Amino acid sequence: MSERAIEVLSEAQCSDLLAAHHFGRIGVVSGGAPVILPVNYVFHDGRIAIRTERGTKLSAAALSQVAFEIDGVDEGERTGWSVLVRGTGYDVTDSVDEVSATLREAAVDTWAPGERDNWIRVEPTSITGRRISNGS
Amino acid sequence: MSERAIEVLSEAQCSDLLAAHHFGRIGVVSGGAPVILPVNYVFHDGRIAIRTERGTKLSAAALSQVAFEIDGVDEGERTGWSVLVRGTGYDVTDSVDEVSATLREAAVDTWAPGERDNWIRVEPTSITGRRISNGS
Repeated sequence: MSERAIEVLSEAQCSDLLAAHHFGRIGVVSGGAPVILPVNYVFHDGRIAIRTERGTKLSAAALSQVAFEIDGVDEGERTGWSVLVRGTGYDVTDSVDEVSATLREAAVDTWAPGERDNWIRVEPTSITGRRISNGS
Repeated sequence: MSERAIEVLSEAQCSDLLAAHHFGRIGVVSGGAPVILPVNYVFHDGRIAIRTERGTKLSAAALSQVAFEIDGVDEGERTGWSVLVRGTGYDVTDSVDEVSATLREAAVDTWAPGERDNWIRVEPTSITGRRISNGS
């Protein structure tokens, strides 16, 4: 039987994974309690841009610290990786600064129908990740 | 072109999805900021049991409100579903009450190696979910 192991991913490995995916989960604190919401995103120039509808709990992200997580798992093999970004969220929908414009131009594709004209930018303060392998 | 749609899932549908999976993500507030951690779990009798190592940020879950999320997505089809549980987390590692014992007996399988002798029980206060389909 092969030996299962946990590998700590480097920030470069985490960034590669963030760049390669477009579906993740943002965590915010709403009314003192945590909330996790699935979102479409792009990772561009070290920042995360999230496109969503107005009026969700994500408006709180503009004023507080946020978490952002992506993962990829194989339930059959019981293996997988995950990346956790912690940082500060900003509502950049109406912002005209260069960074925000760049993120908007990155054209985040959303899966859900309806208006998705709200933009959140996440400035990471830490990016960590790990991978669980089955040793085979 | 088929029309994309969002379907709100019933609590029964959410419970079926929770029972059918064993990998999810717990969200807690740590030092005022949200954290999202991937975990193995079982959904049993309306409660979530999470098995993890000691000393993680999940110890905070014992004292605060938590979020728990599962999802299943098809990045190619840009479809998927998600379930969000909000509730209260308890550390039941050393608890001998009947509920906690039942959850421990449910034998959560963990993917990560090492000691995983810490148990969190989540009592849901709300269970919500939705599904995005491509209409085909």
